[in-house]
Amino acid sequence: MSKFWSDVVHQLTPYVPGEQPKLSNLVKLNTNENPYGPSPKVIEALKLEAADSLRLYPDPNSDKLKAAIAENFGLQMSQVFVGNGSDEVLAHVFQALLKHEKPLLFPDISYSFYPVYCGLYGIKYETIALDKQFKIDIHDYARPNGGIIFPNPNAPTGIPLALAEIEKLLRQNTHSVVVIDEAYVDFGTESAVKLINMYPNLLVTHTLSKARSLAGLRVGYALGNKDLIEALMRVKDSFNSYPIDRFAEAGAVAAMQDSDYFEQTCAKVIATRQALVNDLKTLNFDSMPSGANFIFTKHRTVDGSILAEKLREHNIIVRHFKKPSRVAPYLRITIGTDAQSIALIHALKLILNTH
Amino acid sequence: MSKFWSDVVHQLTPYVPGEQPKLSNLVKLNTNENPYGPSPKVIEALKLEAADSLRLYPDPNSDKLKAAIAENFGLQMSQVFVGNGSDEVLAHVFQALLKHEKPLLFPDISYSFYPVYCGLYGIKYETIALDKQFKIDIHDYARPNGGIIFPNPNAPTGIPLALAEIEKLLRQNTHSVVVIDEAYVDFGTESAVKLINMYPNLLVTHTLSKARSLAGLRVGYALGNKDLIEALMRVKDSFNSYPIDRFAEAGAVAAMQDSDYFEQTCAKVIATRQALVNDLKTLNFDSMPSGANFIFTKHRTVDGSILAEKLREHNIIVRHFKKPSRVAPYLRITIGTDAQSIALIHALKLILNTH
Repeated sequence: MSKFWSDVVHQLTPYVPGEQPKLSNLVKLNTNENPYGPSPKVIEALKLEAADSLRLYPDPNSDKLKAAIAENFGLQMSQVFVGNGSDEVLAHVFQALLKHEKPLLFPDISYSFYPVYCGLYGIKYETIALDKQFKIDIHDYARPNGGIIFPNPNAPTGIPLALAEIEKLLRQNTHSVVVIDEAYVDFGTESAVKLINMYPNLLVTHTLSKARSLAGLRVGYALGNKDLIEALMRVKDSFNSYPIDRFAEAGAVAAMQDSDYFEQTCAKVIATRQALVNDLKTLNFDSMPSGANFIFTKHRTVDGSILAEKLREHNIIVRHFKKPSRVAPYLRITIGTDAQSIALIHALKLILNTH
Repeated sequence: MSKFWSDVVHQLTPYVPGEQPKLSNLVKLNTNENPYGPSPKVIEALKLEAADSLRLYPDPNSDKLKAAIAENFGLQMSQVFVGNGSDEVLAHVFQALLKHEKPLLFPDISYSFYPVYCGLYGIKYETIALDKQFKIDIHDYARPNGGIIFPNPNAPTGIPLALAEIEKLLRQNTHSVVVIDEAYVDFGTESAVKLINMYPNLLVTHTLSKARSLAGLRVGYALGNKDLIEALMRVKDSFNSYPIDRFAEAGAVAAMQDSDYFEQTCAKVIATRQALVNDLKTLNFDSMPSGANFIFTKHRTVDGSILAEKLREHNIIVRHFKKPSRVAPYLRITIGTDAQSIALIHALKLILNTH
């Protein structure tokens, strides 16, 4: 506390990301990173950027990257906004498109950064409870609002919402923006990007941190009607002219262009996920249906917090959320390699036998 | 304009950075980049980051970089804040420390991003006119305020303010934060960093884009009392957990540690500046005294806008500001290599003879 602080600072409750341990011998299944590194073509492109040209500013508009993203999805460049990770993109989305008289709506169990952004920008919001199966029911969102946002698949449940439901929501909610946060969409969830040209109230956000294996590079983007993108550009150009550095742009362009590598990697993660869900079932774990690179799972008798602590003793880190109480029994486990799944199952067998 | 926009978006007048032309045969003296590339040690460190580890998030707190910066200045890590370029650092400074009931004060001729940040965050401000010699007179800032910010050396004038004056200002203004934006300080201006342990109301911002030759990497930082830094951390952690990517952290650490290269490069720029000022004088240009890697100069008879346009025809880009009217006769010229100075003088001779 300090007299020098702006009022807003006193009230902030910052987001706490999953631990980034500095030890290297851990099986790290806590922050939904990809177990496979980026495409070799990305590495090649990045090496070229370590050069004298770093003395020069990057392109403030990241036009090459916008063009690569637009081409990938069959959109116009004016329908693409890029930022320093999808967290920065989301921050601008909250400030530019979701602050209105009526409250923003999002699920009670969802990405826990959403209420933090609301605190930062003074945005009114209401949370809508997931149903008993931890699913989003779009009928619950048929109420006055200044915007709607949720991840699809949702986090930390991993449960996908069908595209037909999203289209219904877009039709019932024409007076405010619907943001579909598709950070994990490439692991088996249907994307809403194909609806963009039909619905001017739809904005979709993506990240290169998960399916494109580039969490260390910090690139995310938003896709939508050009009027929505213009609002984001105005805020970005009032905040930071050059958010995407030369490495981030070059690496992201190469990643967007290497579809083969991307598809192979996603397929491997999906196969490992299915095997892990089956193995966990034999140990009395019930997992939610996942369209993501993680699963949300609970043991029938042992609490999530105990399991997370015991796994840590075996040098395995998973994520446990204390709140709300409905999710406390669960663990969120990132899908790693098959070898990491084997290590996890081995440790769980030891823990459950000695418990 | 769109019904989907938040109110603030309608009123924004974004900052317009200097042009980043996509042609490569230009003498680019418009955005104050360093004519010399980064240290070879920086290039080496960056090459190592093009690796499989990019699949993992960077350290959200950038501790290695904070440690390198702290060591460089003899400060504690808790006195260091880092961001995605000093523009992002400044954005957080405006939101976290400069929004109060009383107006923020800054010079009428100064970094033109300041009023843009005020627009983005709804901050009241008053501009204080520079004196007749285009200098900051700290007596003009002895009035009720919620904060004071100016660059030292000032931009676009390049004129340094003596450290004794800054210390007087810190003593006369104990109830709000004084931010000294030292983007260009390493080119011959005395830094206020040495005052940080004495004045809890002082915050100093730096960038690696200029003297450290890393405009393409996007790293800036703020130094000050730990209470001020905590406010910035709270806002950062409510905005983006991971603003500094793996390349940015590794390159910035190497740059902060290579003092020899940094000092040699700055000395070369200062020497070229002095020679250029002398050459321009023979062509009837009057230049303001500069403590920066640029000069603000005007011809005795030919207007700045005409000269900027004509130089462009010779493939030389410099910066011209139309507003306020006091600066319209001037050109802001970045200090390049000696060869670029020769090209500039040659072009000006042709332009002035044929005018």
